[in-house]
Amino acid sequence: MSIYQATTSAPVNIACIKYWGKRNESLILPTNSSLSVTLSQDNLRSTTTARADPSFAADCLWLNGKVDPIKAGGRLHTCISEMKRLRAAFEAANPDQPKIASFNVHICSFNNFPTAAGLASSASGFAALVYALAKLYALPQTPEELSLIARRGSGSACRSLFGGFVAWDMGSDDATGLDSKARQVAPESHWPEMEALICVVNDAKKGTSSTSGMQRTVVTSALIQHRIGSVVPSRMADIESAIADKRFGDFAEITMRDSNQFHAVALDTYPPIFYMNDVSRAIIAIITEYNRLSEQPKAAYTYDAGPNAVIYTLTPNVREIAQLILYYFPQAEKVVIGGQEVQAALPEGFNEAVAKRWEVGSVKGLIHTRVGDGPRVLSDSEALLNAQGIPKMLA
Amino acid sequence: MSIYQATTSAPVNIACIKYWGKRNESLILPTNSSLSVTLSQDNLRSTTTARADPSFAADCLWLNGKVDPIKAGGRLHTCISEMKRLRAAFEAANPDQPKIASFNVHICSFNNFPTAAGLASSASGFAALVYALAKLYALPQTPEELSLIARRGSGSACRSLFGGFVAWDMGSDDATGLDSKARQVAPESHWPEMEALICVVNDAKKGTSSTSGMQRTVVTSALIQHRIGSVVPSRMADIESAIADKRFGDFAEITMRDSNQFHAVALDTYPPIFYMNDVSRAIIAIITEYNRLSEQPKAAYTYDAGPNAVIYTLTPNVREIAQLILYYFPQAEKVVIGGQEVQAALPEGFNEAVAKRWEVGSVKGLIHTRVGDGPRVLSDSEALLNAQGIPKMLA
Repeated sequence: MSIYQATTSAPVNIACIKYWGKRNESLILPTNSSLSVTLSQDNLRSTTTARADPSFAADCLWLNGKVDPIKAGGRLHTCISEMKRLRAAFEAANPDQPKIASFNVHICSFNNFPTAAGLASSASGFAALVYALAKLYALPQTPEELSLIARRGSGSACRSLFGGFVAWDMGSDDATGLDSKARQVAPESHWPEMEALICVVNDAKKGTSSTSGMQRTVVTSALIQHRIGSVVPSRMADIESAIADKRFGDFAEITMRDSNQFHAVALDTYPPIFYMNDVSRAIIAIITEYNRLSEQPKAAYTYDAGPNAVIYTLTPNVREIAQLILYYFPQAEKVVIGGQEVQAALPEGFNEAVAKRWEVGSVKGLIHTRVGDGPRVLSDSEALLNAQGIPKMLA
Repeated sequence: MSIYQATTSAPVNIACIKYWGKRNESLILPTNSSLSVTLSQDNLRSTTTARADPSFAADCLWLNGKVDPIKAGGRLHTCISEMKRLRAAFEAANPDQPKIASFNVHICSFNNFPTAAGLASSASGFAALVYALAKLYALPQTPEELSLIARRGSGSACRSLFGGFVAWDMGSDDATGLDSKARQVAPESHWPEMEALICVVNDAKKGTSSTSGMQRTVVTSALIQHRIGSVVPSRMADIESAIADKRFGDFAEITMRDSNQFHAVALDTYPPIFYMNDVSRAIIAIITEYNRLSEQPKAAYTYDAGPNAVIYTLTPNVREIAQLILYYFPQAEKVVIGGQEVQAALPEGFNEAVAKRWEVGSVKGLIHTRVGDGPRVLSDSEALLNAQGIPKMLA
């Protein structure tokens, strides 16, 4: 008896031009295009094993060891159904292929970063899910085509189907959404010096979910329409050009301005939405002062729907920035970059007074990573399901 | 020998529709109209004594006991010169009047609230200065006309020349600014139930000055033009109508939305400007939850260029809101409202989890006040200058 199974991993992506607002809730069509950097799976990834078997009583999904119910009409259900539909079409066109589209599936997914870190796992999670099913089903679809389905799991998941620098073009076909998909702007090999430091910020309370938050912004913010119509289109063109020419200063300025503006429209929402806290603000002040010291920005902060800072920079500056962060945010454990421990230090000429020195734990961790590749196919030895199709961690 | 002297006081005003951005820096012409509530001078006021005397060697001004230099071309100099010019015109038209326009003046000003409280004192200060000189010079100008001169001291000072609810119409005469002046929308007697609780918030570091902040916003924010052109004009009309009809719910919603939007365009500035901190955010969450409990908002928060919250509400709700603030922000000293001590308490049905309970000192004081009258003429017994024209507190 054949075993139909595939295991894949997919990366996290962090947007430089932010996705905030849907024009169609069920198809997940955004109100503006967005652009992100894919981060290396060597550090952060979702791993997923998908298996189809006639003996399975129902579709079933485990996320980080717990059953995640597949509700009819829900996002998981949509993604799995769409992938089965593609397999059925593939079988119809290739009568020699085994008939597995009608089998129930077991899917087991695991994020190698703690949910408590506040890093969005839905993007890498849905990308890994869609990619695992695509491999299980031996589908001919391109990553761009698969991104249409990942998008329906979680909008930003579509961007995790590529490595490097990735645009999500909003598209204009509102009836089908078939032109609202991801596109690789440049592969990771184009600009391998692009690195990232993630400051994991302690958060006292859970913020507004991004789904309900962006709905409220679209309905109540007087400013978001101006962002959508007038600001983002030119920013998309500008940042693609900055990436093409590897102009870091421009890349950084656009990234910081767009992070600021996303949080500005969140604040212009009624009632207002705040994702950044005093620690986030302090990191902005520190990076602003750091950039003041050079002619062009050498670092770019960006914040998603939470207080964590992601700082993009180029290889030569990583250690200096890590030293700077450590100066203001002492760490309980030692921080090692490039095999060498990082010591707290300020660059020459830096105005120390732009922030206070915080207590240990305010930034509860630093993750150093870089631009990375798209989804990977893993070997069976890395499968998360055992021979019976049950999660190994539960068996 | 005659003594030419006048003593006045002027109120603080807190805007509901915010002034942020100048179209002309030297005339202080704003990019949008604004509207404020004048707060009672029984609680917060600037007091000023102005005296003209041929024996004075120079114009001289003391603010809170310290000499404040009158720089040529500076704002103080502009206001004093303009007032002298009006007096000279008055003397020319009334030859029987004493010729005092050419005398040097001594001006002594005092704010009854600590600068450390972070309450803007420039509005009440310049209003008291202009009003004191108007009385000293026995000028026939109306408060509206005087507001043109106070505006050139500090934009929002023009609104402190009236009690009650006050608009600052931006005007359209860019060459002279003569139509950019304050107008009383309704006197304090129209809606005497309008009260305010000011939460004085501890601030770790000094924020960007509003003069340089608003300049940077006008130059760098992509969103402010939309605010100026499309949002504020309709908000001005809507809030004037809400005040006319005493519709508190509408007044509150517009006030909160406009505070949010002012801080949103500050955040959309590059580099971004933050005036609110985690305590400010917590107060917003508390007021949002409080308003959720009733069909119409019963409280409105608003924040100027600093972390302090001003909460507008009507008389019947003041105690309940003070109890709520005390619950989350315990005070070192007891808080008394209407002769009775306020105890920390939550309204029924209030979701306690919207904020954490902060340590004593996070909100370092609560000031209870209400809508109040315009500048007052005080008796000579309240003068701040002694018989020799020297500040009493220094003599």
